[in-house]
Amino acid sequence: MTETKSPAPTFRAIDVIRKKRDGIELSRQEIEGMVRAYTEGDIPDYQASAWLMAVVLKGMTRPETAALTDAMLHSGDVLDLSWLPAKKVDKHSTGGVGDKTSLILAPLAAAAGVAVPMISGRGLGHTGGTLDKLESIPGFNVNLSVADFRRVLQVCGCAMIGQTAEIAPADRKLYALRDVTGTVESPYLICASIMSKKLAEGIDALVLDVKTGSGAFMKSEPDAAFLAELMVETGERMGKQVVALITGMDQPLGNMIGNALEVIECVEVLRGGGPGDLRELCQELAGWMLHLGGVANSVAEGKQQSAKLISSGKALETFRQMVELQGGDPRVIDDAKRLPRAQHAMQVTSAKSGYVASMQCDQIGTACVILGGGRERKEDSVDPAVGIVLHKKVGDRVAAGEPLATIHYNANAKAARARQLVETNCEISDAAPPKRPLIRGVIGGAP
Amino acid sequence: MTETKSPAPTFRAIDVIRKKRDGIELSRQEIEGMVRAYTEGDIPDYQASAWLMAVVLKGMTRPETAALTDAMLHSGDVLDLSWLPAKKVDKHSTGGVGDKTSLILAPLAAAAGVAVPMISGRGLGHTGGTLDKLESIPGFNVNLSVADFRRVLQVCGCAMIGQTAEIAPADRKLYALRDVTGTVESPYLICASIMSKKLAEGIDALVLDVKTGSGAFMKSEPDAAFLAELMVETGERMGKQVVALITGMDQPLGNMIGNALEVIECVEVLRGGGPGDLRELCQELAGWMLHLGGVANSVAEGKQQSAKLISSGKALETFRQMVELQGGDPRVIDDAKRLPRAQHAMQVTSAKSGYVASMQCDQIGTACVILGGGRERKEDSVDPAVGIVLHKKVGDRVAAGEPLATIHYNANAKAARARQLVETNCEISDAAPPKRPLIRGVIGGAP
Repeated sequence: MTETKSPAPTFRAIDVIRKKRDGIELSRQEIEGMVRAYTEGDIPDYQASAWLMAVVLKGMTRPETAALTDAMLHSGDVLDLSWLPAKKVDKHSTGGVGDKTSLILAPLAAAAGVAVPMISGRGLGHTGGTLDKLESIPGFNVNLSVADFRRVLQVCGCAMIGQTAEIAPADRKLYALRDVTGTVESPYLICASIMSKKLAEGIDALVLDVKTGSGAFMKSEPDAAFLAELMVETGERMGKQVVALITGMDQPLGNMIGNALEVIECVEVLRGGGPGDLRELCQELAGWMLHLGGVANSVAEGKQQSAKLISSGKALETFRQMVELQGGDPRVIDDAKRLPRAQHAMQVTSAKSGYVASMQCDQIGTACVILGGGRERKEDSVDPAVGIVLHKKVGDRVAAGEPLATIHYNANAKAARARQLVETNCEISDAAPPKRPLIRGVIGGAP
Repeated sequence: MTETKSPAPTFRAIDVIRKKRDGIELSRQEIEGMVRAYTEGDIPDYQASAWLMAVVLKGMTRPETAALTDAMLHSGDVLDLSWLPAKKVDKHSTGGVGDKTSLILAPLAAAAGVAVPMISGRGLGHTGGTLDKLESIPGFNVNLSVADFRRVLQVCGCAMIGQTAEIAPADRKLYALRDVTGTVESPYLICASIMSKKLAEGIDALVLDVKTGSGAFMKSEPDAAFLAELMVETGERMGKQVVALITGMDQPLGNMIGNALEVIECVEVLRGGGPGDLRELCQELAGWMLHLGGVANSVAEGKQQSAKLISSGKALETFRQMVELQGGDPRVIDDAKRLPRAQHAMQVTSAKSGYVASMQCDQIGTACVILGGGRERKEDSVDPAVGIVLHKKVGDRVAAGEPLATIHYNANAKAARARQLVETNCEISDAAPPKRPLIRGVIGGAP
C-alpha cells in the first residue's frame, strides 16, 4: 500500500508580508523563508521591498530580530578563526563624519595581543567608509582572499578587508534593495545587517560605537541607545561578549574629513598626537577591546596599556606592518606627501566673532561628498585627495575673518558649493555652548 | 548673452518613499510624479511596492487621496458621453459573495431612462465578479470596443464591459502590484482605484454599495463607513453626485453563489421573484440610481418606479436586449438549461436542529472558489457551472438532517472540500439570532 505524503507547506511571501503589515509576530521559519527565498532569487524584489517597508514601520520583536540576524548570518560562510590562539575582537561604528578610529584601533589592539579580523564597508551618503580611507594609501588592497586575510591576521594580528561574496550574501542583496527603497532607517534591519556580518567574522567579542547626533543615522540618543541594546542583546544571545558605546556625532570626529587626510590624522594619533576628541574616543574603545580581548583586567587597565603601546611606537609599527602586508606603500607613514594631495586649497572664514555653537554634521559630511570624497550612489568612484580640515570645533572661540576650515579640492565649482555648505552649517554665537561629553553611555560589556 | 536655465527638478522616487514612510504629507506633484513614472516604467516595481506599503501603513490625507485619484484617472482616456441626452449613472459594489445586483440594476435603471455605462471587474479572492457572471451566458462579450460600448449604450440604455487598456492604465498596473505585495487593504488605495475607473466612464452620478461584514474587504462597519465617506468626498470634489449605501455582507446576498447560478437568480428578480434580501437591496439601489439619474424626484419615487418596471416586464426586456446586443444567447432567460450546468449536486445537511445563527461569509465564498467558480490567481480560469445554492439563511429555523445548501460541482475532491467549508462555517444555535438590517447606513447623496 502506497502512502500519500502530504506536500511540504509552500512558502508564500505574500502571507508573510501581510502578517508583518498587520503587526503579527513572524515565526523563525517565516523569516528564514523570506531571507532564503530572496537570496536565492525565488521571490522578486517588489515583494522583498514591501516586506522591508512593513518591517520599518511595524518593527520587530526580539525573537524576530534574532531570527533575521541568524538567517542572514547563515546565508553564507562563517569564518573559523579558532586556530588563532589570541582572542578575536572587532570594533564596528554605525557611521559618521571624520570617524577614522578603525585605522587606529585595529593595529593598536593587535599590538596588545588581541586579534582583530576586521571586515569593513565603504562610505555611503554623508558618511565616510574605512575601505575608502585605506585605499587612499597607494597599493593598499582591501580585496584579499580569505586565505590572505588569515595570513595577514596571523602575521601582524590585524587585517582589514571588504565584505566578500561568501560572507552574509543575504545582507549584500538586502542592503542594496534597502538603499533604493527608503528602508535603511530601521534599528531592527540595521542590527541584523551589522551583526550578521560581524558574527560571520569568527570573533569572540565586539566593541560597538553607536553614533548619535546630527551626523549619525540615529539622530537622537534614545534611538541610538535602542539600537545599541538591540545589537548587544543579539550578540550576547549568540554567545559573544558585546559592548556598545553611545558617542556624540554632533560634529565631525577629529579635524580632518576626506580619505587621505584622515589617514594622516590616524598616523598623528598613532604617534601620540592628533586632536583631543579623536584620541579620547580611541582610548575608550581600545580600553574595551583590550579588556574584552583578555589582555587587560579592566577597561582602565586597557586604556593604560594602549597609551603605552602608542608612546612606545609599537602600535604605529603594527600599522606599518599591516599596510605593507596588504600591499600598501608604508612610506606614506613618514612622508604624507606620498598620499594623494588635492591641487587647491581654500579657506572658509568666520563672518563674525564669537563661539562655534554647533555644526550641522551631516551637511559637513555632504560637503566632503560634493568635493568627490564620498559617493552619492554605490557605483560612484571616490577622489581620495579632497576633503576638509577643520580649524575650529564646537566650543572654540573664533574672531571675525579667522579661518574655520580649509577646503582641499580639485574642481572649482565643487569647492564653491562645499564652502557654502560649511559656512552655512557652522553656527557662530555670542555665548559659549554648553559642553557635552563625547561618550554618552555604555551598554552591555558584561563578561 | 545666453541665459542658463536651471534644470527641471528631477523626480526622485526614493525621496517620495521616505517622505511617506516618515508620515509627511506628499504634494500633488509628488503623487503625480510617482503615478506617472510608475505607469511609464520609469521607476521599478520594487520602489512602487515600498511606497504602496508605506501608504497602507501611514495612510493619506484627503488632498493626497484626491491627487492620487486624479493622477490615476488622467493616466488614460476619460470617456465623453455628453452626446447621450440621458443622465449617466453607474453603480459599484466593493465586492462580496453572491452579489449579483449589477446584472439586475443596469437594465432596470436603463428601462427607467437612465443611461448606465458600466465597467466592471472579475472575481478575485473569495468574491465574485460581474464579468465572470455575464460570461456564463453563452456568447456574451464583455470585451467590446469603445465604439461598440457606445452603440449598445445608445440602443438599450446600458452596456457592461471590462476595463479597457485605455481606461486608467495606472490602476491596472498598480492593482496587479498591490495584489502580490499585500497592499490591497488600504481605504485610500481602494478609493483611488475605484473612483479613478468610475470617473473615467463619463458619468454624472454614482451609487456605491460599500459592503461590511465577514464576506467584505472592510470587515467592520466603521471601516466601511470610512471608505464610503472617502469615495463620496472624492466623487463630489470632481463635481459628481455620489451616494454610498453601507450594506451587510455577513452572509451571501441572495441564495445562489456561482456564475451561471447567479444569472438564474437575477432573472428571477427581474421577473418579480427571487430572495427577499436581494430584492430589497436592488430596490434601494435602484431607487437611488433613478433619483440621481433625474427620472424620479425622490428615492421613494425611484423605488416605486422600478417596482413597476419589473412587474411590467420592461426591465427584463432591457436585459434581454443588452444580452443580445453584446452577443449573448437571450434564450437563456426563458430556458435556464441553456446556461452551463454542473454535472453533480450534493446536499449539505444540518447536524442539529436550531437556528442558523451566523455564516462565515468569506469562507462560503472560498468554497465556491474551490469548486472552480472563482479564481485564486488572476490567471486562473473559471468554471461557470459550479456553485452553491443556500436553502437556509441567517435567522432561519432548520431541523437536524434538513438541507442547508446544495453544492453543484464537477469534481468530487473539490466538492468534498467545499462541503466541509460550508458545514463548518454555518453556525447553528438554539436561539434565534438578533435580526440586523441589510442597509446599515447612507452616506452622501446630496443633490
